[in-house]
Amino acid sequence: MEIREKISTSLSLVKEKNPLIHHITNYVTVNDCANIVLAIGGSPVMADDREEVAEMVGFASALVLNIGTLNSRTVESMLIAGLRAKELGVPIILDPVGVGATKLRTNTTARLIRELKPDVIRGNMSEIKALAGLEVAIKGVDSLADEQDSAVIAKKLASELGSIIAITGKTDVVSDGSQVCLLNNGHRILGDVTGTGCMTTSLVGTFCGATKDHFIAAVAGIISMSLAGEMAQVSLRHGEGIGTFRARLFDSIYNLTPDILAKEGKIDYE
Amino acid sequence: MEIREKISTSLSLVKEKNPLIHHITNYVTVNDCANIVLAIGGSPVMADDREEVAEMVGFASALVLNIGTLNSRTVESMLIAGLRAKELGVPIILDPVGVGATKLRTNTTARLIRELKPDVIRGNMSEIKALAGLEVAIKGVDSLADEQDSAVIAKKLASELGSIIAITGKTDVVSDGSQVCLLNNGHRILGDVTGTGCMTTSLVGTFCGATKDHFIAAVAGIISMSLAGEMAQVSLRHGEGIGTFRARLFDSIYNLTPDILAKEGKIDYE
Amino acid sequence: MEIREKISTSLSLVKEKNPLIHHITNYVTVNDCANIVLAIGGSPVMADDREEVAEMVGFASALVLNIGTLNSRTVESMLIAGLRAKELGVPIILDPVGVGATKLRTNTTARLIRELKPDVIRGNMSEIKALAGLEVAIKGVDSLADEQDSAVIAKKLASELGSIIAITGKTDVVSDGSQVCLLNNGHRILGDVTGTGCMTTSLVGTFCGATKDHFIAAVAGIISMSLAGEMAQVSLRHGEGIGTFRARLFDSIYNLTPDILAKEGKIDYE
Repeated sequence: MEIREKISTSLSLVKEKNPLIHHITNYVTVNDCANIVLAIGGSPVMADDREEVAEMVGFASALVLNIGTLNSRTVESMLIAGLRAKELGVPIILDPVGVGATKLRTNTTARLIRELKPDVIRGNMSEIKALAGLEVAIKGVDSLADEQDSAVIAKKLASELGSIIAITGKTDVVSDGSQVCLLNNGHRILGDVTGTGCMTTSLVGTFCGATKDHFIAAVAGIISMSLAGEMAQVSLRHGEGIGTFRARLFDSIYNLTPDILAKEGKIDYE
Repeated sequence: MEIREKISTSLSLVKEKNPLIHHITNYVTVNDCANIVLAIGGSPVMADDREEVAEMVGFASALVLNIGTLNSRTVESMLIAGLRAKELGVPIILDPVGVGATKLRTNTTARLIRELKPDVIRGNMSEIKALAGLEVAIKGVDSLADEQDSAVIAKKLASELGSIIAITGKTDVVSDGSQVCLLNNGHRILGDVTGTGCMTTSLVGTFCGATKDHFIAAVAGIISMSLAGEMAQVSLRHGEGIGTFRARLFDSIYNLTPDILAKEGKIDYE
Repeated sequence: MEIREKISTSLSLVKEKNPLIHHITNYVTVNDCANIVLAIGGSPVMADDREEVAEMVGFASALVLNIGTLNSRTVESMLIAGLRAKELGVPIILDPVGVGATKLRTNTTARLIRELKPDVIRGNMSEIKALAGLEVAIKGVDSLADEQDSAVIAKKLASELGSIIAITGKTDVVSDGSQVCLLNNGHRILGDVTGTGCMTTSLVGTFCGATKDHFIAAVAGIISMSLAGEMAQVSLRHGEGIGTFRARLFDSIYNLTPDILAKEGKIDYE
């Protein structure tokens, strides 16, 4: 199957399977994450107490871990849920929000990666560079952090960690260590809304819950958000702005079809 | 007074009294709950620290307890606030989100019901069945969980627990153990937005804060959300979707009048 | 420079500097606070764990502390972050949500003021009166709480605390103890949305992150929200309500220009 067809099919699978996506995430964008999962065709569940996360992940098709407002209580829950997910074969998607900014974020991310080996890690370039730097420190590859080519970084890091790496930015890059996909949809206005990164991760999680091809899932999740951003931006009329854009972003995800995904994606696949 | 008139009057009372509704609720939909209370004419207050909840509930006209993202800290606060509410005669409305899914949710709900005897419990059919099953286990009525007739379940459970039971779904049912009301408004698109259940509970809480007839309050809260959902859905134009729907849902609650409630409700009352 | 020019210039500085605003805030309106900071031209970061707040505030241009859903864990983090902010000269903006309602809120606010001496305190009249009463208890000025003139209260309290006091209401008042500014923009519909107070504080924080003149920053933050409220309200068509208003409020902040700020503000400056 050609890559466009795989991406397109993955959205059909989401609509068909309505996967349950367990989130342990931050309280800033949690409502947006829940709504974006619903909008694309999944079912969100948010539960973060250590007493119930292992049980909850048992019902889930994917587990999204997002450290946006991490604290000791929820990090422990992430580890419990994550270990249970590994046992059950439930894919884990990690969003290392702000990794590199504080020791807590850096150490927590390192621990989550070490103990859980997430199936997909999605971040922006500075976050992924921080992760690469983390590996640098461990593995002594000093030059890595300076490399500007995001495809090279994604491929190398994916290979080292055994996780699919998704870097979102002007050009998005997804790699599983051998395949690399460059994506050129989206609009910079997406950066003017909080949580578009978190929501992208939740979309990736939703696709991972519907297809075993997590590389395609990561690509599909990212393209979905980028195309929705384009559609919402184009719809804005004079005097409208970020509040209206945000409503239309959800509209656009809701109205996304496998056909649109197949046709509108600007995909460069090696 | 005929039931339609009572429902209609209860909205007038909300607008007139502007009741303060104390919530201890989840962080996923808390903003929506606050905004829906404001939109219908109440005042929300969210406070969950054990050091202040007893004091805060003293200012409130109703207490909404929602276990959507429960944890040990907030469950303790729910019990403290709830016991104080009982002493003061402040009605308690319980939303047992996800009860039956995990032991923590099931045990917590059992404890909240046992210790607080909520005035109203609102859930979807699977949650209410889990509650009924809970009672089954305690009381040995094994067949109850298999009964398909939601009116029978609501009436029986209301009678057993001494709480008004509100089951929301395609047809909503409210019973206090003797009266039963079936409601047939709403639209399935409401299920595509997170928090419509939580918001319904908050609306029920707001009506309970304005009228002593909590059976009518439960009916009025549910009809308000259902009618607003219908109005918002009808307003959608080509290309619009769930983001716009969500904004219009709040618009519709905001513009709801006693007259609309009286006329548009599809009510079957025994 | 005339005051209108200063206000206008402060918005240009926000757009130019894109200040990072660290929030430790409540989970009810946190998403709105993040989005409003982005809409005006700043960058929000929310982090509340004691292990990282001191580090995070080191990257920030302002620190917003909001006690809307305070608990012992986050209050401790507020103190750690606040003390570090003082060392670094990062301005602190305090929103004492609900102070006076419970002992916890009153004591926490007193402690935050005593230990951190915030640069700006923003509240509504009843909150600021509670603060003044707090001072009363400490300083024995019994009559203060009875004074009706908000300009007098703001000026006196600012002088006593060494903080800029901003009281929002029908007429907003800002004073640093010598200067007083009365502001007459806004629309009462702003009170029908949760978080407009919190968002105003976040806007004040964003302006404080861009200009050293925190008196002007407080005025500019408040006028921005008031003007956006007016613009959003005027745009409402038949059948629209609070959901649409809310989206347009963000649109209006997003489209606000230094020119609009300079021309449309109803400012009475002594």
